[in-house]
Amino acid sequence: MRDVYIAGVGQTQFGELDRDVRQLGADAVQAALDDAADRASVSRDDLDVAFVGNVGGPADRQRGIVGQVCLREAGISGISITNVENACSSSACAVRLAYRELAAGLADVAIVLGVEKMTGVSTEEATGGLAAAADVARESDRGLTFPSVYAMRANAYADRHGDDDLREALAQISVKNHRNALDNPRAHFHREITKDDVLESPVIADPMRLYDMCPNSDGAAAAVLVADDFGTPNNAVAIEAAVHRTGTYDQATTFGDPGKVGDVADVAYDRSGLGPDDVDLFEVHDGSTMGELLNYEALGIAAPGDGPEAILSGRTERDGPAPVNPSGGLKARGHPVGATGVAQIAELTWQLRGEANDRQVPNATVGLAENAGGALNGVGANTTIHILRAR
Amino acid sequence: MRDVYIAGVGQTQFGELDRDVRQLGADAVQAALDDAADRASVSRDDLDVAFVGNVGGPADRQRGIVGQVCLREAGISGISITNVENACSSSACAVRLAYRELAAGLADVAIVLGVEKMTGVSTEEATGGLAAAADVARESDRGLTFPSVYAMRANAYADRHGDDDLREALAQISVKNHRNALDNPRAHFHREITKDDVLESPVIADPMRLYDMCPNSDGAAAAVLVADDFGTPNNAVAIEAAVHRTGTYDQATTFGDPGKVGDVADVAYDRSGLGPDDVDLFEVHDGSTMGELLNYEALGIAAPGDGPEAILSGRTERDGPAPVNPSGGLKARGHPVGATGVAQIAELTWQLRGEANDRQVPNATVGLAENAGGALNGVGANTTIHILRAR
Repeated sequence: MRDVYIAGVGQTQFGELDRDVRQLGADAVQAALDDAADRASVSRDDLDVAFVGNVGGPADRQRGIVGQVCLREAGISGISITNVENACSSSACAVRLAYRELAAGLADVAIVLGVEKMTGVSTEEATGGLAAAADVARESDRGLTFPSVYAMRANAYADRHGDDDLREALAQISVKNHRNALDNPRAHFHREITKDDVLESPVIADPMRLYDMCPNSDGAAAAVLVADDFGTPNNAVAIEAAVHRTGTYDQATTFGDPGKVGDVADVAYDRSGLGPDDVDLFEVHDGSTMGELLNYEALGIAAPGDGPEAILSGRTERDGPAPVNPSGGLKARGHPVGATGVAQIAELTWQLRGEANDRQVPNATVGLAENAGGALNGVGANTTIHILRAR
Repeated sequence: MRDVYIAGVGQTQFGELDRDVRQLGADAVQAALDDAADRASVSRDDLDVAFVGNVGGPADRQRGIVGQVCLREAGISGISITNVENACSSSACAVRLAYRELAAGLADVAIVLGVEKMTGVSTEEATGGLAAAADVARESDRGLTFPSVYAMRANAYADRHGDDDLREALAQISVKNHRNALDNPRAHFHREITKDDVLESPVIADPMRLYDMCPNSDGAAAAVLVADDFGTPNNAVAIEAAVHRTGTYDQATTFGDPGKVGDVADVAYDRSGLGPDDVDLFEVHDGSTMGELLNYEALGIAAPGDGPEAILSGRTERDGPAPVNPSGGLKARGHPVGATGVAQIAELTWQLRGEANDRQVPNATVGLAENAGGALNGVGANTTIHILRAR
């Protein structure tokens, strides 16, 4: 397997934007191409292959050839372009497929795009679109939404470990991510909130409240990857592991069990030869604050049951020993579902290059991204983990 | 690159079915697994990776995790499952990705599924769903549908080559494919038609008539692929080439120019070391009869301008020297869009094993499948070609 580097990244503003997938996608692609031209002298003509993550929500009627439409707008056609739809992890899965093409020697230069338009439709349409990433006939149609999946996980967690400080811990995760996003100019939200704001916000699915949940956002992110035979970019960031697994839904499992994420993390750590203590920052899937808390335990940041302590002690703050979501995460950077996976990779890249400006984690050389996609039987339908390292 | 074999295939009935994507997908997967167990002793536990093609039309609300839902129903979870959405070529692209994983040594055994539910919704909903595989904002919303794309190609063809026998040739393609489907028990249509039936059917987009167009169908098809290190299946069929390209939309081009398909075919022929004369049967994308005729010229079955002669002389009939769509093609086997790519591979596999019963092409050892997906600027957005050979 060849070494694979991130040669360039780009991200649009995330938020409620008056732009469609074509415009969002083309902007992110152009930004990543500009970066890759500077770093590794990559031009459009060098691109061998493209993978594009998009979930096709109700807010943009373009389907089927979303990647072809966006990349054409950025002046790219004629190569193999594959649209990947693995729910909220679509573009992390796209990154992984591009990585594998390059690592295996099937191609030398790849571009990956994640793009989503989510705002501008009714809450019913948006919720219905997202619920289509669960089992529609057996779960969504019977009332299960993603907030309720997270609520059931929270309640199962409380049953197992007690709930003394769980609710406070979840609130603090939201406060932290909103604070981190203040320093991220591309974030959806730039508004500091307090623990009380979270704890007094409306209950969505007990115990999850409005400010525990990530927003629906518009946005796009892109990355250019190169194999070592193409050349080593300046200030290179290498992909040390890229692992994707679908859940094992029918094993005896509870909603609170972070099992699969932990299994995938174990594979990623093993492949990279790195462990949790080697990781300088984490970008994880806080579709809700409970998602981030479960990740603490699945990724080895905290022992089982110690998730609340990890946030309440400040360990996962940006200036703590295990910073999680310095970008603001899904909660505050925003969650244009098909774009989030690449946005995480872009954030890690900026951090590992030392270019994250006011949100920079000092001396960061290793970063981990965890992106989740959909749910079946309450279990994450997709878990995708990347480990990146500055070379 | 390692050799990759088709170890097992399966297909459901195609047609208007009272089944959802979960049931259709699981049935096709189970059939392919049964076949692969017989041929190559493949069991569920051997599967390393899965790729699933689905377009997510309006007739089934399941999105995001279609592959995870279908494969779980067939008892498969825990591996990497990627949903691919490249319009009508989604599952041919899925086959190609699986092939590349195996050829490159990233995995040993893969399963590919193509599945689509299209009936049971209004014509408006179905047409709108399909139109989302063109450029929605710039083309579909201005009135372009796929029948009109084919009509513009037909008119451009007539401008270039004359239309003396074009209309009759197109009618004869429909007659041939309906006749071929009489011997395909899984086909959507089992009804012989005449040239007059075609020529008297309603005009959809001049000169294309109703009986020139493929139907909306429900159905699924699946295939199990193995790398040579896993073992050589009994009566093995090898993938000799798997090529996918997106169109080059902004070159000076006309709607009648089959250029890109020809370019992709040239790459596939080159990689396989085979030429058009070596191919014993073709399964091509007759989304309309004009699609099949253009393929004659793009794939080297006929010289430019000689497409009509190829059908009118009987050359592409099942007992002719270059049989095209012995299965009945999209026109009569049916076109559940996400399933068609794998259905073509299944048909080639049965033919190359000598198991196609009453529709068997005698002594077939090499087969070619061409699957098209979507359109931009009137140019095919995706062209995917596989060449298979009996070993």
